[in-house]
Amino acid sequence: MLKLLCNADIYTMDRSNPIVENVLVENGKIVALNVDNKIEYQKVDLEGKTLIPGLCDSHLHTVMYGSELDKIDLSAAKSIADLIELGKNHIEDKDLKKDDWIFGWGWNQENFEEDSLPTAKDLDEISKNYPIVLKRECRHVLTANTAALKAAGLYKKNIANKRVYKDEKGNPNGVLCEDAQKLILDAAPKTTVEDIKNYIIDASKKYLEYGLTFVQSDDLADSSISFHKTLQAYFELADSGKLPLRYNLQLRLTNEKDLKEFIANYKTGNYNDYLTLGPLKIWADGSLGARTAALRESYNNLDSAYGELLCSREKMENLVKIACENKMQVACHAIGDRTIEQFVEIVESMQEEYTDNLRHRIIHSQLADYQLLKRMKATGINTDIQPAFTASDWEIVENRIGKDREQQSYLWKDMIDLGINTAGSSDSPIEKPDPIWGISCLVSRKDELLKPEFGWLPNQKVTVQDALEIYTKNGAYNAFVEDKFGQIKPGYKADFSILSQNPFYVKEDKLREIEVCNTIIDGNLSK
Amino acid sequence: MLKLLCNADIYTMDRSNPIVENVLVENGKIVALNVDNKIEYQKVDLEGKTLIPGLCDSHLHTVMYGSELDKIDLSAAKSIADLIELGKNHIEDKDLKKDDWIFGWGWNQENFEEDSLPTAKDLDEISKNYPIVLKRECRHVLTANTAALKAAGLYKKNIANKRVYKDEKGNPNGVLCEDAQKLILDAAPKTTVEDIKNYIIDASKKYLEYGLTFVQSDDLADSSISFHKTLQAYFELADSGKLPLRYNLQLRLTNEKDLKEFIANYKTGNYNDYLTLGPLKIWADGSLGARTAALRESYNNLDSAYGELLCSREKMENLVKIACENKMQVACHAIGDRTIEQFVEIVESMQEEYTDNLRHRIIHSQLADYQLLKRMKATGINTDIQPAFTASDWEIVENRIGKDREQQSYLWKDMIDLGINTAGSSDSPIEKPDPIWGISCLVSRKDELLKPEFGWLPNQKVTVQDALEIYTKNGAYNAFVEDKFGQIKPGYKADFSILSQNPFYVKEDKLREIEVCNTIIDGNLSK
Repeated sequence: MLKLLCNADIYTMDRSNPIVENVLVENGKIVALNVDNKIEYQKVDLEGKTLIPGLCDSHLHTVMYGSELDKIDLSAAKSIADLIELGKNHIEDKDLKKDDWIFGWGWNQENFEEDSLPTAKDLDEISKNYPIVLKRECRHVLTANTAALKAAGLYKKNIANKRVYKDEKGNPNGVLCEDAQKLILDAAPKTTVEDIKNYIIDASKKYLEYGLTFVQSDDLADSSISFHKTLQAYFELADSGKLPLRYNLQLRLTNEKDLKEFIANYKTGNYNDYLTLGPLKIWADGSLGARTAALRESYNNLDSAYGELLCSREKMENLVKIACENKMQVACHAIGDRTIEQFVEIVESMQEEYTDNLRHRIIHSQLADYQLLKRMKATGINTDIQPAFTASDWEIVENRIGKDREQQSYLWKDMIDLGINTAGSSDSPIEKPDPIWGISCLVSRKDELLKPEFGWLPNQKVTVQDALEIYTKNGAYNAFVEDKFGQIKPGYKADFSILSQNPFYVKEDKLREIEVCNTIIDGNLSK
Repeated sequence: MLKLLCNADIYTMDRSNPIVENVLVENGKIVALNVDNKIEYQKVDLEGKTLIPGLCDSHLHTVMYGSELDKIDLSAAKSIADLIELGKNHIEDKDLKKDDWIFGWGWNQENFEEDSLPTAKDLDEISKNYPIVLKRECRHVLTANTAALKAAGLYKKNIANKRVYKDEKGNPNGVLCEDAQKLILDAAPKTTVEDIKNYIIDASKKYLEYGLTFVQSDDLADSSISFHKTLQAYFELADSGKLPLRYNLQLRLTNEKDLKEFIANYKTGNYNDYLTLGPLKIWADGSLGARTAALRESYNNLDSAYGELLCSREKMENLVKIACENKMQVACHAIGDRTIEQFVEIVESMQEEYTDNLRHRIIHSQLADYQLLKRMKATGINTDIQPAFTASDWEIVENRIGKDREQQSYLWKDMIDLGINTAGSSDSPIEKPDPIWGISCLVSRKDELLKPEFGWLPNQKVTVQDALEIYTKNGAYNAFVEDKFGQIKPGYKADFSILSQNPFYVKEDKLREIEVCNTIIDGNLSK
């Protein structure tokens, strides 16, 4: 059945043919552009709205996002007292069973009156009976209550792990960060494949509302779920045609054993039209907010704090080597310049031996300065950035790394100008999976309150055209599907997003007000 | 004497170090950045203004601009009657001598009520005694009165040159275009070296007011002046230290003889600190407005009008070959896609034989579509664009070439994104030599009336950062002086422009209101 999408401002993201009048679609594919309007096709009247290629989020965590949709949202908490109240309300609202655990997420002590981390003692005021685990906004830090500490065998335990924070007596105070979080989370009830499938479906519905038609999801490393279970959930959904949008899986296999097991049993690349298996994901440092991202020079005013490399050079080298041998792309989580440099050096050192263009990627890349970006360009390393982080972080960056390094951070425009393929992502649930918000952050570099007045580091503002490409064709390129997705071109999949207003025709401060009216996947309207 | 420029927003255009606190200058050079403010240097307090590298115009015509400063400015004429009135006023105001000629410039029949070209008959109403020559805005067309036609021996002459327009009786009607203009201009009084020096000085004063510290000037081909005379004028000014700003000369040598003569007698490159001799300039087509730019497919609704190549493939090939053999850069005037393609093909065909990176350039490049731009990038061809042309031309482009080709025209952003070194110019006197206006056009793509509302082809808008680079370091690169000019960096020349407002801190529609407060050349304030 031939369908003609028409009566819209249509931007193709194909630079050779940037604007077209209409798009002819058949069997889920684009078959022609600018066809003669007089011929009688079934018309899909887009009522003067704006049509663009389906939006892509190039790095998020679907299972975590889906599971958090029914956990306590703590992002509004302005004090520890707020945190406690939100926790109490949740218990009142929910019909909890005896063995249930309570999870929450999204607090940030930077927003608290007291500017201090909540501890087990604070959370005990919510409940002493139910184990409670509340994750910080960045998910690199959590606080557990005493019941959770007890369930995990950590209560008053003498433990020599500096990522398990201690009270004045030397006992765990409930705060755990980075991989130490596993000590608590492993004690919580196990997640089933059915649970995971529900999380994916719940998250997918939200993604479509936000205008996404394609997401690249990093899900395998939840400490409470084996990666086989998560893959099983995706495969079952894909096999039964129940994935509501396109997925690429970023495979966070945290050690050589898991990686080799994956390679022996699975295959990267195309699974079916809705699912591809993507890069090996390596998790290599923490966050800037928590001062856990690994730096080459110490954090500002903290001479001995350099953050920490969560993946040693040897381990990273080994994982990259195995990936290269198996022609597998590597996507490395790296925020601090030390982490970024380590990954770049490893890729540089392997350039002669492995000559395939595997499109390795650095996810985050906040502290890649111009010199590091030039090396990334030279080694063919791409990036997946989180534009919303400019809004979330701009006020703390100078505090963390000082004025000079601040100028060389979050260099989104420099990445584009150097020709590094730069894809946009939300890192959801860290930020809401909202590409329009991401586009707004890219163009304006302002936060929710339109601060700072002229944008943060305004020389790094990008154009609307670049911002749209970052959320469409650049995302497709990083996932090796740029021949099917991310542009409006004959032969490409008929995936689109429909916007309420033309982003080229609004002022930069109004971009955030654009609504996604609908999405089209395989030629069909989602709602 | 060490001087410290301070108390300013300082943008260096050096991506590794984009913003600095102060600049230390000695003997005309930048010696350090971000020095300790406490040490007692002579301070130049910039009072909170914005300091950027000295602005560069990469293609203009100084002798023509200087000479037009005291000719009739016809740009306000809205009818032929206006033209006549402006001419009459000029005669009244001036103390003309018996043999004087009257020159004017800047009319455009697109702005006329009658939308027709003025003829000799019209100009005779200004004066039948004085020869009168009035050039169109584009300078590719002029109208002469009967006295001028007589002086040139063209009156009622039967001449088989289709660029000499005829009346209903077949006699020249006073309109001459492209190289035919020479037939009239050769009859006018000869210009002396002193005249030329005065033109250069007059123009230079204006340039400094507009904030320019470096211009690349194409002056040699005025039909009434031998190129030796023009060079002599520049050399005398340079030798006596009287050039008020930096000049690079674009050498429009129109035939093999002149080019070989130049090569035998002069040398490209550095003449002194204020003068460099630059590329061979080849003039290869006309303008879009006059439908004389050479197209691959005919002008819209005019099946047989393709414009005209003013330099045949053989001639162009020959000139480029001689230039390459002498390691001379070539800057080719090319507006139409046919002209651009011819130059690109010639450079492509010589790539193997001549491997030096001579940074050949296409001046104008309006109708370079994305495919041509990719070929330019692949052959290392750079561009010199006229951002103000978007404001002057946007309303006529669709009329000239139709909607589809319009979308692939004036692709300033695509040039940047492809990594083509793109420098900004006014083509003055075609447009006023105002880099702030150029920057405003690049960022907003709107005209003087802020039309069209969202900018013309808004997907081609560039950022403020790109716009500033286009008028600073990109210009320096195209002239092979990027190691001395165009950035604020130790070792570079102490040339700066001082702006009344921070261009990153105003809305796009307000960029045009930024004023140039002063310029600094060799460390000295110009006023």
